Amino acid sequence: MRTQVVIIGSGPSGLLLGQLLTHAGIDNVILDRASKDHILARVRAGVLEEGTTRLMDQARSGTRMHAEGLPHDGFSLAFDGRDHRIDLFGLTGGKRVMIYGQTELTRDLIDRRQGEGALSIYRAANVLPHDFEGGAPYVTYEGNGVTHRIDCDFIAGCDGFHGVTRRFVPEKAVRTFEKIYPFGWLGILADVPPVSHELVYANHPRGFALCSMRSLSRSRYYIQCSLDQRPEEWSDQRFWDELRRRLPAHHAERVVTGPSFEKSIAPLRSFVAEPMRFHRLFLVGDAAHIVPPTGAKGLNLAASDVHYLFEGLLEHYQDRSDGGIDAYSVRALSRVWKAVRFSWWMTTIMHRFPDTSDFDQKIREAELDYLTHSRAAAMALAENYVGLPF
Amino acid sequence: MRTQVVIIGSGPSGLLLGQLLTHAGIDNVILDRASKDHILARVRAGVLEEGTTRLMDQARSGTRMHAEGLPHDGFSLAFDGRDHRIDLFGLTGGKRVMIYGQTELTRDLIDRRQGEGALSIYRAANVLPHDFEGGAPYVTYEGNGVTHRIDCDFIAGCDGFHGVTRRFVPEKAVRTFEKIYPFGWLGILADVPPVSHELVYANHPRGFALCSMRSLSRSRYYIQCSLDQRPEEWSDQRFWDELRRRLPAHHAERVVTGPSFEKSIAPLRSFVAEPMRFHRLFLVGDAAHIVPPTGAKGLNLAASDVHYLFEGLLEHYQDRSDGGIDAYSVRALSRVWKAVRFSWWMTTIMHRFPDTSDFDQKIREAELDYLTHSRAAAMALAENYVGLPF
Repeated sequence: MRTQVVIIGSGPSGLLLGQLLTHAGIDNVILDRASKDHILARVRAGVLEEGTTRLMDQARSGTRMHAEGLPHDGFSLAFDGRDHRIDLFGLTGGKRVMIYGQTELTRDLIDRRQGEGALSIYRAANVLPHDFEGGAPYVTYEGNGVTHRIDCDFIAGCDGFHGVTRRFVPEKAVRTFEKIYPFGWLGILADVPPVSHELVYANHPRGFALCSMRSLSRSRYYIQCSLDQRPEEWSDQRFWDELRRRLPAHHAERVVTGPSFEKSIAPLRSFVAEPMRFHRLFLVGDAAHIVPPTGAKGLNLAASDVHYLFEGLLEHYQDRSDGGIDAYSVRALSRVWKAVRFSWWMTTIMHRFPDTSDFDQKIREAELDYLTHSRAAAMALAENYVGLPF
Repeated sequence: MRTQVVIIGSGPSGLLLGQLLTHAGIDNVILDRASKDHILARVRAGVLEEGTTRLMDQARSGTRMHAEGLPHDGFSLAFDGRDHRIDLFGLTGGKRVMIYGQTELTRDLIDRRQGEGALSIYRAANVLPHDFEGGAPYVTYEGNGVTHRIDCDFIAGCDGFHGVTRRFVPEKAVRTFEKIYPFGWLGILADVPPVSHELVYANHPRGFALCSMRSLSRSRYYIQCSLDQRPEEWSDQRFWDELRRRLPAHHAERVVTGPSFEKSIAPLRSFVAEPMRFHRLFLVGDAAHIVPPTGAKGLNLAASDVHYLFEGLLEHYQDRSDGGIDAYSVRALSRVWKAVRFSWWMTTIMHRFPDTSDFDQKIREAELDYLTHSRAAAMALAENYVGLPF
């Protein structure tokens, strides 16, 4: 088989890139080692920047998102028993974010792709990129016990942090940067109305808490936990009690409890691999970089990568210029590092670290105090939260 | 002897407080263990916030400062071979800073105090505050071999980080917060024109450098150095060579060299003692808190402390209300911590730390990159640099 672009990974970045390419008349195939049902069962992020929703529209997949997603004009920063609203809309001159689960977004993109008849191959085992440093790359995979080969012009590695693509780039050509945070997030999903109509990020001496949501009847709550804990140690009751303790009283009183139907612990990590291009292979989204979930930048960074890569590929095929492809890594990384910095900063000021000195703790409290008193500081927070321009 | 307020320390904070009290008809005596000449020989900070210059005017000591001081509307942030101007005036809606050496400011205040006949006692040995937790405090000191006693209503400890006052407050009543930075500043004074008409803060892989000035013909330059070095190891030539290496080319070319007449190494420290009031004793300025010099907040924080304490004492004597005195510590510390945070942050992003990981280094570069691309972030930097409101 031959195509123009092989996309490894059928998550949001692979699907977004696939849709954009298809609509531009650029042939592409998506390979994923998982099944469609498995992909659609993953619980992930849920806060979309405007750049991401624009890209969903550009991918002609935004209808349900606009109908069912919840536009949010602000969020709450809770600390010291108080609650301070960050007016995203007012501070950014009219920008907002959209609450819409990554699972739903993925479903919309898969449905659209299927409806348009573009090829996705699921349960593709042992996917391997070949010869991307030369002029004739190809990808092999196994299905039904047979090895298949797809020749192509370019390979896009959209297969996430644990995916295979990054492992095949020459080790000497890559620099990696990493920070592991000494705690995790214990998250639950429950069909109860959210405690507030906006998200609440809480800094508390007992640890961070986040009140998020998927819809007006489905809540997503997180609490900071230590990494040696297991979800089974947390009964629903224990979770709800701990969540309430970390929220200001007026929120704690309003927590509606109910049985959780998902409960898991996620580690927090910052990671960047540079560069993001290796001749005819590109790394996109989580395959190249990971951010902690504080500030909800992961999915949105994948979207900006897709934007830069799509613009580059379009220029290659339509204008026969490699300017965009050549600039891909630098353009993407410039935005990536700003978001990595923001996610690191927001994680740092909102969490309790085991090695936080009394001085560090006071600095964080001073930062939160400053944020709630300075319009400039709140503007900087808001512009990062809604997403820096692509 | 009896007075209303005994001020321990004849530096800028003690002198400013003394002038304000004198002009409000509140009797005060300043004690200092050093001689006047010694005090006037100290080389210290030189960037005044508008709040500080207003206080100098309020102390009727601002005439020479306005005539000889240099108003600065911005400064340069140099990194990665580039130079980015922070337009303080434009970013803060018309605020600026004033370059005027602390030595000159101290001289103006001493001259004014002397001219008005208010009492300063120099070379006062073994100054001790007594009974400030009761209703009848007094201060003893030794002069010419005799112990003297001054009875008073209040004692103001304006005697700096190494002064005696803080040591006499009850240990159990104080919490201290401290961070020692793993490097120092090697500073020189030379009678050569400054490299630029504004200050240049440079982040360089070899370490931080600062091009400052005292006047249009006197430069004050600093370079980050390790703490185990001694000034004697640095010939003028070695200093100039190292300074040039750390500046972008267009600045390096313009460095005018000449013999230094002051060369010293200062350690960098953040320190805060809480609270700042102990019944009838108050800590003011460096006696209660120290910041690293990056961002020039030390003298300016002393000025805001003086402002809050003077307002409190005025309220006590004029309105017979202790509201202002009772609020002194909380008011002062709220501003102190914001400036401690800012100084820590500016120190962190501008210096090379021995334990900086590659990830941390990239975060700092991302922060500088963000600062030069975001008006909100630059506004936050500028509003802190010119000084948050008292």
